[in-house]
Amino acid sequence: MQGVEEQKTLSLTVAYNGAPFCGFARQPGQLTVQGELEHALGLLFRREVATVCAGRTDAGVHARGQVVSFDVSEEELRDRTPRSLLRSLGALTHDAVAVRAVEERPRGFSARFDAVSREYRYFICVDETPPVFMRDFSWHIPKPLDVAAMEQAAAHLIGEHDFKSFCLAASAKDKPTCRNVNEVSFARERVMGENMLVVKVVGNAFLHSMVRTTVGTLAMVGRGQREPDWVCDVLAARDRSAAGENAPAQGLVFWQVNYGE
Amino acid sequence: MQGVEEQKTLSLTVAYNGAPFCGFARQPGQLTVQGELEHALGLLFRREVATVCAGRTDAGVHARGQVVSFDVSEEELRDRTPRSLLRSLGALTHDAVAVRAVEERPRGFSARFDAVSREYRYFICVDETPPVFMRDFSWHIPKPLDVAAMEQAAAHLIGEHDFKSFCLAASAKDKPTCRNVNEVSFARERVMGENMLVVKVVGNAFLHSMVRTTVGTLAMVGRGQREPDWVCDVLAARDRSAAGENAPAQGLVFWQVNYGE
Repeated sequence: MQGVEEQKTLSLTVAYNGAPFCGFARQPGQLTVQGELEHALGLLFRREVATVCAGRTDAGVHARGQVVSFDVSEEELRDRTPRSLLRSLGALTHDAVAVRAVEERPRGFSARFDAVSREYRYFICVDETPPVFMRDFSWHIPKPLDVAAMEQAAAHLIGEHDFKSFCLAASAKDKPTCRNVNEVSFARERVMGENMLVVKVVGNAFLHSMVRTTVGTLAMVGRGQREPDWVCDVLAARDRSAAGENAPAQGLVFWQVNYGE
Repeated sequence: MQGVEEQKTLSLTVAYNGAPFCGFARQPGQLTVQGELEHALGLLFRREVATVCAGRTDAGVHARGQVVSFDVSEEELRDRTPRSLLRSLGALTHDAVAVRAVEERPRGFSARFDAVSREYRYFICVDETPPVFMRDFSWHIPKPLDVAAMEQAAAHLIGEHDFKSFCLAASAKDKPTCRNVNEVSFARERVMGENMLVVKVVGNAFLHSMVRTTVGTLAMVGRGQREPDWVCDVLAARDRSAAGENAPAQGLVFWQVNYGE
């Protein structure tokens, strides 16, 4: 078998609390989720392992179901099973990271390019007094929100649009900014006795800070600062300054990725 | 009206994350929830305000609905309303504390002595991999628990019993240790996508560390280390060393107090 290098593609499903990290993407000298995962994989496979992720979350943004893919050779895997890898990665990564699953994928699978859609959930605490249990995982808006108006506004975002106004300006420069949004929906949920308005956003892919800008824009409508139809003007402007504020990072959770399975 | 000192009794409903505190009860030189509340009340009323609580939670234990009562004179209250007090207390207390409600009560009301029953909830994370969002609010038991056996064991605890075996030994010395437990029930709940077994414990009153010892004892049954009927032996022993371990503080939430309203 010598000389024959059969490659395998594996994926990790990863949850993390974004608070301690300078975002997902590896950056020299910074604590990042990718840095943590690649460090652990490096210890296991005794070489640099390059990973690809489904969505690069910003500093402070959390994940429930981030997906990360990488290739290893059969020889490197030896008698390691997905199960034993799961345990080893659990032991080797930061406390704020939990590797939920290790799976073998079809060869060449890419966590990024094979994703059919991505789901984010944004948690707004709508209690009058601040959250205690959800303090690190929500945006507190104590004044009542007009959710019906937010739903009306969100309807304008469904479908394929140029979301340039919803993208961090520096990141939008000379890049395609059309995306397809499948769903923006609202649900009331009690989490540990605290009242949340959960904004679910599903799309094929997202621009830099697009979900947070979407939520910040919809919150302006919910607070009655803008009419629902204003969102059409925001889209048409193709200018970040036309949209609402960036909702705080700590309310956002990269919920799950759909690979069309 | 001079010289007439009409007293009013107020109550606070308080939520807190127990992590930063050395428990509820005031202790000189330590960060405590009672210390925080009394400090804020002291600033508002410009005197020492003594408070009484429904349940003194230990270091690290959380609360969703702790209740605290205290007396003030009408003169001290002046034009302060429960609503304005709520806002002032919110501004004056530690970030990990949230005053949820301020209410005027019948004169002489005691958060402690007028409580008809108290409810605690204990969160066990039953996922194979560790919780991320519920990390600070649950006990992680990755091995499957036999909940039916735990229910059988819990049935022995219902009613009036001498719970001396479930009380921190030093606290049980020369004190009555009979309590009435109304309910010990189990529910599966998903919190932020993480799987919890929630143990709800309701009783008239609780001994020091009684809920945590109850959960630790039931967990031994759930893990198959003891038969459900062993709980009867534990009760009969009237000795803390007969019971299971103290379940970790961070999984426990003082959920609510019932005043028979």
